[in-house]
Amino acid sequence: VSAPHPEIREQELLADELRELWPFLPLEERLEGFHALSRSEAEELFLSFDAREQAALLGALPPGERQLWIRQLAPDDATDLLQAVSDEERAALLRLLDEPTRREVSALLAYAEDAAGGLMSPRYVRLRPEMSVDEAISYLRRSARERVETIYYIYVLDADQRLLGVVSFRELFSAQPGQSVRDVMHADVTTVRDDTDQEAVSHVFAETGLMAIPVVDAENRIQGIVTIDDIVDVVREEATEDIQKIGGTAVLDAPYLEVSLVEMVRKRAVWLAVLFVGELLTASAMSSFQDEIARAVVLALFIPLIISSGGNSGSQASTLVIRAMAVGEVRLRDWWRVLRRELAAGTALGAILATLGLLRVLLLPVHGVDSSQHLVLIAFTVAASVIGIVLWGAVSGSMLPFVLSRLGLDPASASAPFVATLVDVTGVVLYFSVATLILTGTLL
Amino acid sequence: VSAPHPEIREQELLADELRELWPFLPLEERLEGFHALSRSEAEELFLSFDAREQAALLGALPPGERQLWIRQLAPDDATDLLQAVSDEERAALLRLLDEPTRREVSALLAYAEDAAGGLMSPRYVRLRPEMSVDEAISYLRRSARERVETIYYIYVLDADQRLLGVVSFRELFSAQPGQSVRDVMHADVTTVRDDTDQEAVSHVFAETGLMAIPVVDAENRIQGIVTIDDIVDVVREEATEDIQKIGGTAVLDAPYLEVSLVEMVRKRAVWLAVLFVGELLTASAMSSFQDEIARAVVLALFIPLIISSGGNSGSQASTLVIRAMAVGEVRLRDWWRVLRRELAAGTALGAILATLGLLRVLLLPVHGVDSSQHLVLIAFTVAASVIGIVLWGAVSGSMLPFVLSRLGLDPASASAPFVATLVDVTGVVLYFSVATLILTGTLL
Repeated sequence: VSAPHPEIREQELLADELRELWPFLPLEERLEGFHALSRSEAEELFLSFDAREQAALLGALPPGERQLWIRQLAPDDATDLLQAVSDEERAALLRLLDEPTRREVSALLAYAEDAAGGLMSPRYVRLRPEMSVDEAISYLRRSARERVETIYYIYVLDADQRLLGVVSFRELFSAQPGQSVRDVMHADVTTVRDDTDQEAVSHVFAETGLMAIPVVDAENRIQGIVTIDDIVDVVREEATEDIQKIGGTAVLDAPYLEVSLVEMVRKRAVWLAVLFVGELLTASAMSSFQDEIARAVVLALFIPLIISSGGNSGSQASTLVIRAMAVGEVRLRDWWRVLRRELAAGTALGAILATLGLLRVLLLPVHGVDSSQHLVLIAFTVAASVIGIVLWGAVSGSMLPFVLSRLGLDPASASAPFVATLVDVTGVVLYFSVATLILTGTLL
Repeated sequence: VSAPHPEIREQELLADELRELWPFLPLEERLEGFHALSRSEAEELFLSFDAREQAALLGALPPGERQLWIRQLAPDDATDLLQAVSDEERAALLRLLDEPTRREVSALLAYAEDAAGGLMSPRYVRLRPEMSVDEAISYLRRSARERVETIYYIYVLDADQRLLGVVSFRELFSAQPGQSVRDVMHADVTTVRDDTDQEAVSHVFAETGLMAIPVVDAENRIQGIVTIDDIVDVVREEATEDIQKIGGTAVLDAPYLEVSLVEMVRKRAVWLAVLFVGELLTASAMSSFQDEIARAVVLALFIPLIISSGGNSGSQASTLVIRAMAVGEVRLRDWWRVLRRELAAGTALGAILATLGLLRVLLLPVHGVDSSQHLVLIAFTVAASVIGIVLWGAVSGSMLPFVLSRLGLDPASASAPFVATLVDVTGVVLYFSVATLILTGTLL
């Protein structure tokens, strides 16, 4: 094979570099680089962007160029782009589309972004059941040149757009020429409803191993298809949202470095403030034990140790359960099995940490305690509190996602900081109650 | 179209129900259900399982049935299954494969599970560049009946297995009959190396929007192809691992409800114990301030509030940065931009929480403080400490993933509990230092 033309090679290097640097360039340099690309390289770059990035680029381009670029997009991608801009911009951009695409996009805009209807493409290949395999292949050969999403899955419809079956291109291609489409199609089609949540759609893909799934309305009429490449984005996006919630922020909805500082502070401040107010209860709880602290200051030393052990155990339990629920390994009705596990695991973990705590108090110097009898009593106070709070952390951390889910909220809101705060207040009360029980008459 | 035969419909219901209940059934019921399915339903169910589940089922089946089932698997899936079993089982199962597959699988077993080589299938369609489009289509029609992974992407190779180009089936199908494969192929092929990490492979899929990518060795010889359906699993698996690390556990490597209790405790105890030992430093730090606590017990009341504010702010910052690094939005060299953002965000967030803290101390009763002058001083002590610790949480939480990554460790190990523990110790020292500064001569 001949070596590529040197100019083409240069173009490719420029395109690769631009793609790599894109998120880190100021707007003018992005535009300059974009305009320096050949038409096909620019097209490839534009299509590789996500909807938010495409919208930003489109907004920055001179108005005369916008039509050219928005018309490169398939209807589902054009819809995503339009969902990423303001209402006025949306109306203006819609006008740039050609008539049939505008109609398709307007229909898609009616669906929620995170439902199957918001993911689907209306451009699938359809056949009638009575067609012969040869007729079908000729028809597909023509379709291959058109703007359909995929020619590799073909849907067989009746006159009312109701789904009768599905056949892969490969099956059609390797069938006997005399057979009809009905002979080779599968009548048992996996479908999703247009209002199915995108996370549920991703589970159907995972369970079935399919590359495309048709989307139907309540009357089993096909509305479009979802392809697996869109599901990769869904899985990544849902994981990002869950991770951000687990970390105790509102979902950012944009790359970290591109969120404005004001927006970033706002999304983090809400949860931090709520947690701060919750944590204020620890101060109130502790003020009822001020006399105990005054009599045995040594008790104060172990407060951070004890409450953080509960918080850590709670963070572990809640994140494990949140993720298991998100990937479908644990369902709402499994709460009892999870609770039993966490009771056992929490007790074991508590015992391990309590042993470490016991050893710390007994073996390393504790200032302000002279009598070894008192030291032993403090050691047991710490150990008993650690077992209790670690167990409580595991139980409340694992049950909170179930409670949220049962209330119709997102289980991922049982963030690590939220669980830690919940456990902190309990931890303070537990520790001082145990201390009063064990130490009254000696240190207290 | 005629209604499906009632027995077939019953089979489907049974299969769906079994798939749904599978993770929650005891082993005997799983086997019973599996054997009650028709051959094609059983096949579909088996193929929908992940490697771990397939291995478990295979191990439970009578030895005579194992060969039948393991031979259903494509070489890349058979490899995954073999990587999920013990060494002895692996040798025994390898013997059940037919000779060509055994050779393919043995070659794949040499690759790391989480590298491109461990994901790829060696069964791709290859063409010579001098073939005509018509010859190519006839050849593909024969291949469609064989066990190749996909006929939709076709790779053009020279005599040394070096990759010359790629063409999609659709392009070939809509080309002019007189053209040669070389005329329609794209010479600029996106490839990944066989030792590329699977997370990096998933980024290449995201950037290019391709459905399959060829895997080449150091000499650009094609070794296999990775298809996008495998990438969905990679993205989900990598997110699960990151979430578990962020929650402060070792990676479970199996569904929550299927990990044995001993294993679960082991995977959680290691991190909990490390954090506990780290947290012991708070006790040591506080013992140097025992005199201050004894003189002003009121100071102890706000310890949990202050350290948890730092921990929460740190959890937010570290999870945001970990996720941004994982999806490629932030690179190692961006640390300076992230630091600047977090300095600004941390100061703003600290100021917001400090205001809340100030209001709490001034407006709600604080027992044990009689003088309003003292109350104001305490309020400022709390507020200044909160600003400092929230800022420190944001800075250390955001920088820790960079430090870990620079050291060649996984940034996701900067878990919420880890950052919280790190900040707790600093928080105690900071709070009492500020208190000493502000309160010496009055309360202290």
